[in-house]
Amino acid sequence: EEYRGASTGTDIECEGWRQEAALRLLNNNLDPEVAERPEDLVVYGGVGRAARNWDAYETIVEELRDLPDDETLVVQSGKPVGRLRTHERSPRVLIANTNLVSKWDTWEHFRELEAAGEMMMGNYTAGSWGYIGSQGVLQGTYETLASVARERFDGDLHGRTVVTAGLGGMGGNQPLATTMNGGVCVVAEVSEARIDRRIDEGYCDERADSVSEALDRAREAAEAGEAVGIGVPTNAVTLLETMLERGFVPDVLTDMTAAHDEITGYYPSGYTVEEADELREDDPETYLEESLDTMERHVEAMLDLQDAGAVAFTYGNGIRGQVADRRGFEEAHDLPGFAPEYVRPLFCEGRGPFRWIALSGDPEDIYRTDEVVTDLFPDDESLTRWIDLAQDHVRFQGLPARVCWLGYQADESGLSERARFALRVNDLVREGEISAPVVVTRDQLDGGSIANPNEATEAMKDGTDAVADWPILNALLNCAAGADIVSVHSSAGAVGEVTSTNNHVVLDGSELAAEKAKRVFDVDPASAVMRHADAGYDDALAEAARSDIPVPMAE
Amino acid sequence: EEYRGASTGTDIECEGWRQEAALRLLNNNLDPEVAERPEDLVVYGGVGRAARNWDAYETIVEELRDLPDDETLVVQSGKPVGRLRTHERSPRVLIANTNLVSKWDTWEHFRELEAAGEMMMGNYTAGSWGYIGSQGVLQGTYETLASVARERFDGDLHGRTVVTAGLGGMGGNQPLATTMNGGVCVVAEVSEARIDRRIDEGYCDERADSVSEALDRAREAAEAGEAVGIGVPTNAVTLLETMLERGFVPDVLTDMTAAHDEITGYYPSGYTVEEADELREDDPETYLEESLDTMERHVEAMLDLQDAGAVAFTYGNGIRGQVADRRGFEEAHDLPGFAPEYVRPLFCEGRGPFRWIALSGDPEDIYRTDEVVTDLFPDDESLTRWIDLAQDHVRFQGLPARVCWLGYQADESGLSERARFALRVNDLVREGEISAPVVVTRDQLDGGSIANPNEATEAMKDGTDAVADWPILNALLNCAAGADIVSVHSSAGAVGEVTSTNNHVVLDGSELAAEKAKRVFDVDPASAVMRHADAGYDDALAEAARSDIPVPMAE
Ligand SMILES: NC(=O)c1ccc[n+]([C@@H]2O[C@H](COP(=O)([O-])OP(=O)(O)OC[C@H]3O[C@@H](n4cnc5c(N)ncnc54)[C@H](O)[C@@H]3O)[C@@H](O)[C@H]2O)c1
Ligand SMILES: NC(=O)c1ccc[n+]([C@@H]2O[C@H](COP(=O)([O-])OP(=O)(O)OC[C@H]3O[C@@H](n4cnc5c(N)ncnc54)[C@H](O)[C@@H]3O)[C@@H](O)[C@H]2O)c1
Repeated sequence: EEYRGASTGTDIECEGWRQEAALRLLNNNLDPEVAERPEDLVVYGGVGRAARNWDAYETIVEELRDLPDDETLVVQSGKPVGRLRTHERSPRVLIANTNLVSKWDTWEHFRELEAAGEMMMGNYTAGSWGYIGSQGVLQGTYETLASVARERFDGDLHGRTVVTAGLGGMGGNQPLATTMNGGVCVVAEVSEARIDRRIDEGYCDERADSVSEALDRAREAAEAGEAVGIGVPTNAVTLLETMLERGFVPDVLTDMTAAHDEITGYYPSGYTVEEADELREDDPETYLEESLDTMERHVEAMLDLQDAGAVAFTYGNGIRGQVADRRGFEEAHDLPGFAPEYVRPLFCEGRGPFRWIALSGDPEDIYRTDEVVTDLFPDDESLTRWIDLAQDHVRFQGLPARVCWLGYQADESGLSERARFALRVNDLVREGEISAPVVVTRDQLDGGSIANPNEATEAMKDGTDAVADWPILNALLNCAAGADIVSVHSSAGAVGEVTSTNNHVVLDGSELAAEKAKRVFDVDPASAVMRHADAGYDDALAEAARSDIPVPMAE
Repeated sequence: EEYRGASTGTDIECEGWRQEAALRLLNNNLDPEVAERPEDLVVYGGVGRAARNWDAYETIVEELRDLPDDETLVVQSGKPVGRLRTHERSPRVLIANTNLVSKWDTWEHFRELEAAGEMMMGNYTAGSWGYIGSQGVLQGTYETLASVARERFDGDLHGRTVVTAGLGGMGGNQPLATTMNGGVCVVAEVSEARIDRRIDEGYCDERADSVSEALDRAREAAEAGEAVGIGVPTNAVTLLETMLERGFVPDVLTDMTAAHDEITGYYPSGYTVEEADELREDDPETYLEESLDTMERHVEAMLDLQDAGAVAFTYGNGIRGQVADRRGFEEAHDLPGFAPEYVRPLFCEGRGPFRWIALSGDPEDIYRTDEVVTDLFPDDESLTRWIDLAQDHVRFQGLPARVCWLGYQADESGLSERARFALRVNDLVREGEISAPVVVTRDQLDGGSIANPNEATEAMKDGTDAVADWPILNALLNCAAGADIVSVHSSAGAVGEVTSTNNHVVLDGSELAAEKAKRVFDVDPASAVMRHADAGYDDALAEAARSDIPVPMAE
């Protein structure tokens, strides 16, 4: 009942739409359709919370209801700790989650503080009140595969095979993200039930009964240029080793088992699911060894297929680190991560996972914004394809939302793509064509807003993978530009390994909103360009020149 | 010639005083009177730089000269990396220095990046362009001793003895800080030359020829209520062990040898200075062992004197950690740090090391601000005493500056002490009574702006010593409130062990400056009150109630 989701419509409980937006987003994060365990305030990823505890939640709600237009609510790791006088061009909410001084930034100390009620894990969008359900991951995977297609093939995946494993919470998006790009996807998933669920939900198309059936079907579909997602109930390592035996080299190869967690996220080969589940209970040590053994074979098979010509990459599940650190198999790092090769070129242009949420609760408002995107950027093929397909395939969870990658890419008047979109939507809100304000935000995994040496900032050209000055400057810039909510998060499920930021701008149709949108969607994508220009990426230097972003010392 | 110090007077090179202020502060940090090694851009502490390198310095200067009133210069670890459109109520300069993602936040990785030209150590006020020479430490020590006097004695140190060691760059302030509080100070310093230098500079009064002479003189002066600083050329451990033998228990006991560095900062007993210097060269391993042996005896003697009734505390030199971590002598931590007991009560009231700098270069402007302080706060005895004595004893270095501890302590109209002072000075600038704008800033070691578990936030009541959310929120609040320079620094000479922030507001007599001052000197001291109220300190809860600072969940 406390976690009933956001209210909808045009009546507001707060002093203004900026505060109302914060309140609705917080409640949306706890919508049972959106949140993993709303009763525990857990939004996603097993640990990421929206507020420290129910007392804190209720106080946040009260404070937001009362908050005037020239004050700012201060939230520290999910707890409202102050409400201070600022001004209307400032943020209405400032959030810092899970930041610890480095030497003490360990799981052990975090857990001590958490147990004492002094901290919470905010992950990315959980503690910054910007989670929008699984659409974000679907679109991220779609965009990554589109980038693979652009960098390695002829721009789409028609006639190409993508081979991967894992149809869990995140991984379940892979077949649909592939078919949206025109390709054929074969996914190994040990659990038949998961395959069937993904088929029911429309994220996967077919289940093959055996590896050879799957491979035959994939080859046939690829030759016919048919887009299809095929689940095969088997262990990843079995699929890949069979492919090696048969000389079946996929075009694209990745993995989305939850290998970062060798006990509950990864299944060893040689056991049925039931046997493995039993082993995990009865003899976790043996499970762990078996699991790491399978992972090592899994990575070896990926490397062999890569040598044979597959475009292989890891997708943020930590499988390389597991095998390198715990089995001494350093060659694991010969598999590239997805970020440096396929996401970084986008970041260099200020492109990143931009998203917005209709506070009305009305899907029609989102469809109207979809038109704005396709109107404004008719030449961006992968973007318009995404919008088309998303309308069919994306089920809204909680408040309707849309995500797509927009960048800087200034027009003649110097406005970024993101600013042009936001200003147009703000107009439509003012004109009543959109029924209530829209909040624009983004994933924390954007070009200027994150330092994560294991993933987003892996292998930076200048070795600055771990430099956290950049996200901190990004947060300060968003604050200076007047974003309505600004947050700085560390740890995001991996204590001590990442620092990132988020921003929200409420488009309520006002002049103030237009002013904020114009500035925030300048500085935010510009900081991506700046960061990559400083690191020496040509694409970023070109973007800075084209879009007239001053980067004083970058050559 | 590049490091000639700030220009002075009322002609400016930049578009406005805010930018000019940033430029003058940067140059002031590199004034040969101020900076340790201006030729290397090193301001203080051996490593703290004002800019990454000379190229970066020159580009910052150029950018500041051109910067309009609605743009913000972005500085990343001493390098100007972008110049973005914001608005006049935003900061003109945003700085992030030496921030690394925790897991990589080590000396080793920092040094790698520094060697590659990708980072610099900004310390506190070096990289945030707010260093004002040794006045800051003198005042900090004065204020700490004043707090000791309030908490433990009758409000001053008349008739009290303070015993300590080290008359180096920081420690040299101790005798003067003691006599300013009315007490008798005995300092052990191995180097006779250093004692004589401090006497020449007026920071110390007398040199004793032996430990017994020093102790006799101290007892006699204390009995007579005479304030005097006595240097004695001996090792700290010799002084303390002799005191124990003789049953001479000082009222206050601390230490400011540079024990954090056991090789170049600390002298072992049993050697003359020359012998020790030779040993350091010839046989550093033996030096190290001897040095740690002496430290262990040093700490044991401090503990014994504490048991005998001395008010003992360490003063941020790391001697406890050295002895505990490297000699297994855990009892070292029975010595309290200065912060929890003597500085925290001030932080709870929002008090902290507030300071300001006259951009004119004219000492008369500072004397005028001194009058403002004594006018506004006539009842604050230790403050007015400080101002009186500072006029006689403080030698200005570079641009004239003043530091004193002001707090929140709202008046009837809700304005904090800091805000009242700044608004009054802004008026005087407008009226021409002060000849040019004044910049108001503070040390990073303020109540809401730092997480440093070894010192400032040691032993927080709620165990949140290492929570870095607080300084990050403080920086965002300063940015939201429109401070003209906002900076976030990690590491400050101790990689991975501290996160802190700074702010600057330029009082140019304008309405805009008044608006900024009013807001910044609300949110900045309020964040100290908030942080300590949240941790459950009664003084902070009382201050929040008295000054009407909303802290929603603090009981
Ligand atoms: N790239 C990104 O942006 C991104 C984002 C979020 C998460 N991740 C990572 O992706 C991984 C997957 O996340 P998830 O939420 O889908 O995890 P999940 O636990 O929900 O799903 C994992 C799935 O893999 C299956 N599986 C495990 N071991 C297998 C094996 N050896 N062979 C075949 N199937 C196997 C499981 O049955 C399960 O269905 C995680 O490691 C996560 O951290 C990446
Ligand atoms: N509390 C604070 O706010 C604060 C601020 C800055 C620095 N510090 C710490 O204070 C300490 C002193 O700093 P500094 O700049 O004065 O150092 P410094 O190196 O300039 O001076 C140290 C002095 O101690 C003397 N000395 C060393 N060992 C001795 C011994 N055993 N007996 C007698 N004399 C001895 C040396 O001859 C030297 O004069 C450092 O550890 C520093 O990190 C504290």
